[in-house]
Amino acid sequence: MTSEKPVVDVTPEVIGEPNILSQRLAALRRQGKTIGLVPTMGALHEGHLSLVRRSRQMCDVTAVSIFVNPTQFAPGEDYEKYPRVLEADLEALASAGGADFVLAPSPAAMYPEGFDAHVHIGGVTKRLEGECRPTHFDGVAVVVLKLFNMSGADVAFFGQKDYQQAAVIQKMVRDLNLQVKIEVCPIVREADGLAMSSRNKYLSAEERAQAPVLKKALDLAKEQIEAGNRDTADLKHQMRRLISAVPSAAIDYISIADPATLEELDSVGGPAVILLAVKIGATRLIDNIVIP
Amino acid sequence: MTSEKPVVDVTPEVIGEPNILSQRLAALRRQGKTIGLVPTMGALHEGHLSLVRRSRQMCDVTAVSIFVNPTQFAPGEDYEKYPRVLEADLEALASAGGADFVLAPSPAAMYPEGFDAHVHIGGVTKRLEGECRPTHFDGVAVVVLKLFNMSGADVAFFGQKDYQQAAVIQKMVRDLNLQVKIEVCPIVREADGLAMSSRNKYLSAEERAQAPVLKKALDLAKEQIEAGNRDTADLKHQMRRLISAVPSAAIDYISIADPATLEELDSVGGPAVILLAVKIGATRLIDNIVIP
Repeated sequence: MTSEKPVVDVTPEVIGEPNILSQRLAALRRQGKTIGLVPTMGALHEGHLSLVRRSRQMCDVTAVSIFVNPTQFAPGEDYEKYPRVLEADLEALASAGGADFVLAPSPAAMYPEGFDAHVHIGGVTKRLEGECRPTHFDGVAVVVLKLFNMSGADVAFFGQKDYQQAAVIQKMVRDLNLQVKIEVCPIVREADGLAMSSRNKYLSAEERAQAPVLKKALDLAKEQIEAGNRDTADLKHQMRRLISAVPSAAIDYISIADPATLEELDSVGGPAVILLAVKIGATRLIDNIVIP
Repeated sequence: MTSEKPVVDVTPEVIGEPNILSQRLAALRRQGKTIGLVPTMGALHEGHLSLVRRSRQMCDVTAVSIFVNPTQFAPGEDYEKYPRVLEADLEALASAGGADFVLAPSPAAMYPEGFDAHVHIGGVTKRLEGECRPTHFDGVAVVVLKLFNMSGADVAFFGQKDYQQAAVIQKMVRDLNLQVKIEVCPIVREADGLAMSSRNKYLSAEERAQAPVLKKALDLAKEQIEAGNRDTADLKHQMRRLISAVPSAAIDYISIADPATLEELDSVGGPAVILLAVKIGATRLIDNIVIP
């Protein structure tokens, strides 16, 4: 499972029914194959494709799920307009060497009539995204738990861009004794530093030009810390000043936190993670950087 | 997995740490062995032992968990006084031919410092036990989900005595895409009809003599239905009259319900389940009977 394998192009079987995926993967598991799962909401970009490549290196079989999960959107968020581009996603997957299975279910296949299960992970869900989007992580937890269960994955791959999401999932794995290993892969960025995100498509040309300010603010704080500035209030003040100079930007939060618990730090005495959420025009973007 | 195998006596490995059980069972699964799980709270009686025997017939490996789960008891219920008799349980298991593994964890091993996961199954949890014990099924769901995950069981065995519990678990399996098969095994009864329960130990001699009234009331309704009485109000009235004649008995509920949804029936037109909860002195007993 940990040895790196040469990548051979494969064309995925595209599956709509979770039970069919479960049957296919159970048969492969019985043959001793290891299963890698890459959960996505589609609109695949290089960030997603890096997860798929990593899965193909680490596991015998790779399943990619493409599902815009309604339970993790609140009313008034962008569930309806979130990009749904399955054909383009399959082409993008092919360009990355492919995957063995693509699960592309309907909402009714994931949440059939009478569905009534709720999963809540406490602690690490409370702040930041959890505060801005109070029902978000419950929706993430239930869909990811379903995907873990239906796939029986040995390893599941998530991007570091959604840092808090990865922390919530790792907490769920521990608390619920799930046997899946979570691999968190590095953020993939555009040439100008903007973290890749399916939501970048929402940006106007002008907003797109201003969006790299998130990464610039993270870099500013990182340089300051490396230069010996430990004062998180001052660091956040400097980040805020930099971002506020951008006309389209409105800060949701800036946090300098413990990398494991995501509790706010008063001063940077060891490892830390700097996280932020900023609206660029109407588009809410998140980004983060880990300070070792 | 479905073929019946000759039973050979085995002495269990007794394990306290969930992670150790996971490792042992993962290794056996990789060898192609099927895993049967019998979740119990200990104080094993013939009802539990019938589940263990069934697991040993159906599966290559049988794991029995013995854990008085604090999250399914409300304050003021019998968590503290619930019988904990591991040595006697191991003897009882041996008398039934044994099991391969016994998981007997401490509360801290199941719910370590910082544990903060919540699972709620709606619908079928709302009435009956869910109404009398509002937090009970959330506690059942979380512990059973943890046991399913840590064991990777192919089949899990539950007694029909806890009819609603089995329905909740089957709903959880469907809603969360769990790949475990749920086997619900028949109620095992004392010679006078009293359903076996670890809580029967709480009964005084006098109460024990009166406790079979639960089964008598179920039988009365069943006979009436077989004789053509479809009127659930009348059936419940007759059951209530029979039970009320017993000095130590206080009825919590009597229900004649749809076997799948547990919704109350006005008249018996097809399959039904009759369920009741009755306090005999200070001891709350439940029982049920399925009408095909």
